[in-house]
Amino acid sequence: MIVNMKTGATAEEIDGVVQRAKSLKLGVQLNLGTDRTVVAILGSNTGKISTDTFAVLPGVEQVTRIMKPYKLAAREVKPQDTIVNIKGVEVGGKRFVVMAGPCAVESKEQLFEAAQIVTKAGASVLRGGAFKPRTSPFSFQGLEEAGLEILKQAKERFGIPIITEVMDTHEAKLVAGCADILQIGARNMQNFALLKEVGKIKRPVVLKRGFSSTVTEWLTAADYLLAEGNADVILCERGIRTFEDSTRFSMDISSIPVIKKFSHLPVIVDPSHAAGHYSLVPSIAKAAVAAGADGLLIEVHPNPKEALVDGLQSITPSDFTRLMNEMKPIAKAVGRYI
Amino acid sequence: MIVNMKTGATAEEIDGVVQRAKSLKLGVQLNLGTDRTVVAILGSNTGKISTDTFAVLPGVEQVTRIMKPYKLAAREVKPQDTIVNIKGVEVGGKRFVVMAGPCAVESKEQLFEAAQIVTKAGASVLRGGAFKPRTSPFSFQGLEEAGLEILKQAKERFGIPIITEVMDTHEAKLVAGCADILQIGARNMQNFALLKEVGKIKRPVVLKRGFSSTVTEWLTAADYLLAEGNADVILCERGIRTFEDSTRFSMDISSIPVIKKFSHLPVIVDPSHAAGHYSLVPSIAKAAVAAGADGLLIEVHPNPKEALVDGLQSITPSDFTRLMNEMKPIAKAVGRYI
Amino acid sequence: MIVNMKTGATAEEIDGVVQRAKSLKLGVQLNLGTDRTVVAILGSNTGKISTDTFAVLPGVEQVTRIMKPYKLAAREVKPQDTIVNIKGVEVGGKRFVVMAGPCAVESKEQLFEAAQIVTKAGASVLRGGAFKPRTSPFSFQGLEEAGLEILKQAKERFGIPIITEVMDTHEAKLVAGCADILQIGARNMQNFALLKEVGKIKRPVVLKRGFSSTVTEWLTAADYLLAEGNADVILCERGIRTFEDSTRFSMDISSIPVIKKFSHLPVIVDPSHAAGHYSLVPSIAKAAVAAGADGLLIEVHPNPKEALVDGLQSITPSDFTRLMNEMKPIAKAVGRYI
Amino acid sequence: MIVNMKTGATAEEIDGVVQRAKSLKLGVQLNLGTDRTVVAILGSNTGKISTDTFAVLPGVEQVTRIMKPYKLAAREVKPQDTIVNIKGVEVGGKRFVVMAGPCAVESKEQLFEAAQIVTKAGASVLRGGAFKPRTSPFSFQGLEEAGLEILKQAKERFGIPIITEVMDTHEAKLVAGCADILQIGARNMQNFALLKEVGKIKRPVVLKRGFSSTVTEWLTAADYLLAEGNADVILCERGIRTFEDSTRFSMDISSIPVIKKFSHLPVIVDPSHAAGHYSLVPSIAKAAVAAGADGLLIEVHPNPKEALVDGLQSITPSDFTRLMNEMKPIAKAVGRYI
Repeated sequence: MIVNMKTGATAEEIDGVVQRAKSLKLGVQLNLGTDRTVVAILGSNTGKISTDTFAVLPGVEQVTRIMKPYKLAAREVKPQDTIVNIKGVEVGGKRFVVMAGPCAVESKEQLFEAAQIVTKAGASVLRGGAFKPRTSPFSFQGLEEAGLEILKQAKERFGIPIITEVMDTHEAKLVAGCADILQIGARNMQNFALLKEVGKIKRPVVLKRGFSSTVTEWLTAADYLLAEGNADVILCERGIRTFEDSTRFSMDISSIPVIKKFSHLPVIVDPSHAAGHYSLVPSIAKAAVAAGADGLLIEVHPNPKEALVDGLQSITPSDFTRLMNEMKPIAKAVGRYI
Repeated sequence: MIVNMKTGATAEEIDGVVQRAKSLKLGVQLNLGTDRTVVAILGSNTGKISTDTFAVLPGVEQVTRIMKPYKLAAREVKPQDTIVNIKGVEVGGKRFVVMAGPCAVESKEQLFEAAQIVTKAGASVLRGGAFKPRTSPFSFQGLEEAGLEILKQAKERFGIPIITEVMDTHEAKLVAGCADILQIGARNMQNFALLKEVGKIKRPVVLKRGFSSTVTEWLTAADYLLAEGNADVILCERGIRTFEDSTRFSMDISSIPVIKKFSHLPVIVDPSHAAGHYSLVPSIAKAAVAAGADGLLIEVHPNPKEALVDGLQSITPSDFTRLMNEMKPIAKAVGRYI
Repeated sequence: MIVNMKTGATAEEIDGVVQRAKSLKLGVQLNLGTDRTVVAILGSNTGKISTDTFAVLPGVEQVTRIMKPYKLAAREVKPQDTIVNIKGVEVGGKRFVVMAGPCAVESKEQLFEAAQIVTKAGASVLRGGAFKPRTSPFSFQGLEEAGLEILKQAKERFGIPIITEVMDTHEAKLVAGCADILQIGARNMQNFALLKEVGKIKRPVVLKRGFSSTVTEWLTAADYLLAEGNADVILCERGIRTFEDSTRFSMDISSIPVIKKFSHLPVIVDPSHAAGHYSLVPSIAKAAVAAGADGLLIEVHPNPKEALVDGLQSITPSDFTRLMNEMKPIAKAVGRYI
Repeated sequence: MIVNMKTGATAEEIDGVVQRAKSLKLGVQLNLGTDRTVVAILGSNTGKISTDTFAVLPGVEQVTRIMKPYKLAAREVKPQDTIVNIKGVEVGGKRFVVMAGPCAVESKEQLFEAAQIVTKAGASVLRGGAFKPRTSPFSFQGLEEAGLEILKQAKERFGIPIITEVMDTHEAKLVAGCADILQIGARNMQNFALLKEVGKIKRPVVLKRGFSSTVTEWLTAADYLLAEGNADVILCERGIRTFEDSTRFSMDISSIPVIKKFSHLPVIVDPSHAAGHYSLVPSIAKAAVAAGADGLLIEVHPNPKEALVDGLQSITPSDFTRLMNEMKPIAKAVGRYI
């Protein structure tokens, strides 16, 4: 930690910082600049100490943390890439993994039709929401338990792993009874109670980025899952909130190389929620492949016009098939295959 | 709802929109402009229908909702101000209500000392966190149940209502056993399972604004509480996330008059989390009074230098006492008292 | 324009809106909803009338514009793609055009070395700044006129078109004496005096997106250039300002398909300013190709460690050569070539 | 400057940083932490050196600047408050100064009527735009020179100083022929050519904050004016761009105490452009007084319904008079008068 003293800080104030550090068994080194003094706080333990500990002391201008706040998700801690294995489907390896399906499970017919389409086109995982987080209490909230039942049937019938969202600690075990991958939604990225609970269940997890969380906070949230012993964490970039209003969210494409640089965890992209409009989804999906993402989580609906949820951002079966074909040479160009 | 057709949309496409509306028992009126056609969808039920229902149809450029998505929180539904009564303390009335105390309960001594200071200075509610949402799993997570016990003792000893945070459905009833006001934190503003659970408990609630939620989403989240029959909802503005980095969050002071215009619910301000630095807190607090807020939720620590959490944004007892005095004439200037 | 009356607006208030429209020779159609009335304002001329004209009237809740504020940049006005021809280099056609070179012209040696490298690797246009916009007055401001002279020499020596920035109306003609493409920087996107001046010069222009401008504002700024009769406008996405701090700006990759949908103008991408760090540039560049951009504006420095400006975001000659090769198959996958 | 080496950086890499510093005549001090080394770069001259100088070297993780990039605007350089004197009106002193008038000069009648109203209500400076920055080239651009002429007449007739906007270097002297205060608009905050030109004119300046500029960038832009010898700089906070859509911009009220802490320059607030709606203006104006601003720049129109520009955000004469009265006790509460 770097403690930057104010210009004109007194010797007594500087000593106050030094004594505070010593009381915490931390090392100290003084940098006497021409205008001001900088105190470096040293020790392997500084990550657990709040910057406020020093920032509140008299004469201190600012405290900067040198170490990143996340530990277990950091590439420094584990240099080799994490590969998450979901019943033989590897996320984070050479294969670019596509998880596709409708936003919400609406009926057995709808999900089975979607499953048939997406598996035929080459998707490896079937997505479908049973519990749906909706901004208004008056909107359709998902089929809930009945939806899980339909997902189970689709899993058996098509032999494809299932990803579905878990929204609350109460229902975590129930959802885990069906899901091969537990999805934690953007709004729950910092629902720490849920992260701990899902960490304990030790099922592969997709952790969506909170739409106004920094990459650093996202990786620190992943630490909650990893700290419980669940190593199978997949990150999912789904767009961040900005002032731009031509899309629902702004796909932060740079987060892909940033994650690859600072973390060992695999990262996939959800182009549907970012775009908010089907016509923009293919371009964003292709950009994700080119930028080095490990996969996609994408909304495909047999008949978007009849979708109960998010029809506008769902692509049709024929568009999905075309997209799968168009992504193949791009995947190859970056050393991957689909 | 207003369905804006593309320039050159065909008669067939326009008819597609009309037929879709009719199938949903909605009224329709066509506006034939010089360049393009606009279809107005009429009916008292349009709030429950997604804009996607029409946006996915061929020939449609854009769909705009005329009605706000929130219902129960809207002033249109209930023109007179809601006043929340917490054991005689009225939030939303003439009195500007100050809720003060430390960020986290650290010990009985610390909380009692804080309680004595803030009650003496004129605060009406004691704040203190037992369960703390922390970005890193390696940070202090609060005293949890032991913290609730200390809060209970402070309540008895000082005869002052308590506000404390509830983070998860599992612990909701436990927290309600002690708290006079349940606080839902910014990161949980769209934790819909928690909102439903707290809505059912029917205890006054402070609903903090998600730091990247719009006012509209915030009021729609309040609808989750109100829809369960809990009418005692207090909103709390605590700053939003922007590009500005001289403060932790940017206090959205305009949200106060916006809320007053569109909703009947009382709204208080948390200047501590917005500022992130004690030296900025008094100015923001005074601005909140002047802008028409109904109260404050503010961090005061007997000894900020020793605080385990958020010491930098906590003000000292003497600063708090001075602030209370300085706010009085401002409150008077806007027709309130402290 | 759609004028949304308040619930309970009186017949007199509604008539006030109707009369205002009629006084402006506009058509009107009333939509009497169950809860509120909506007045559609019709006429080919509504684009020139401010929404405030109606929003200030009593009983009005909100006014929504149906037509986009930009006219000349809209695909509706000109459905076929604009191709900008710079001495034989076509931007907006099948070829993915790469404009490369150092951020600032530092010396003849540096620029010539850069020119040799980038032309050999396949770039079609040489970039280099003579007038540099710097946030601090105490930073290096560019070689100014001497820099233009060096650019002229490089142009003759290497037979490659030059792009360089123009920052002020005063120097517009001077810069146009050397530049084949005039670049308008992000900070000047809404410098309307400069837009008008450059519009009159009728030289191809690269208009960078203001880092907190919406796509709609960007296209409306392009209207300033087009309205002066300058049809050769190339847009350049260079990242927007968000809360994310792991990159200098957040590359808004979705703006590429959005621009392609709503405008006929070509759009290129500047991955260097968005990323702020050389290690992130290649991934963003490849994503730009995949997303459908028409070209790149990229910083390459013979020796980034010695760069006077923006060394950290400049890639080395060998990285540039590798990137050019890696982009080729991606370009092919989206029907382009490099 | 603090150079944070990567974990595992070699002795050779650390030495590379040291040698680079020495070659620039800077001092160096090494902090050998348990996990990584931190190199402190010392010297009074570091402000002129880009962080990139070190960030590009091998083994470097990150470079943090300890000193703020602005110099002349910093309170460290000049501890006492700057008071700008405009023909006897002091901005930055005990008096809270109100600058009021219409957004655009529309006619002599309109401006004279406005002048009469605002002077009677206690405003000290008359505002009115002759050159108007408009997002679309098809919107009313102001009366330009004819507008300046009307402003001159109002100045003579009412004996009140005038503030009006200068948009381009070409017209700077022309505008200075009439204006007592030159206003630089938000879109031009980083128009460095204009800043230099206006700096040379040595007339009091109001520098509006760019709507997506940080406070640090704003103060650094002020350095451009101060570096030319123009000491009479007034800052104007007018709201920043965020995701919130219930207001045009989000008033960053915290910037007031932040500016007061880090700079000696006076700062006023423009509640009209931030709010975008007249009904929100009074609350924001009162918050500005309470937060410690030195004045207001506010839009008042004799008849907002007929305004050519920004009618919706202009308040009426009677609302202005009421607001002036309501602000008085708040000003008194913070040790000021109106």
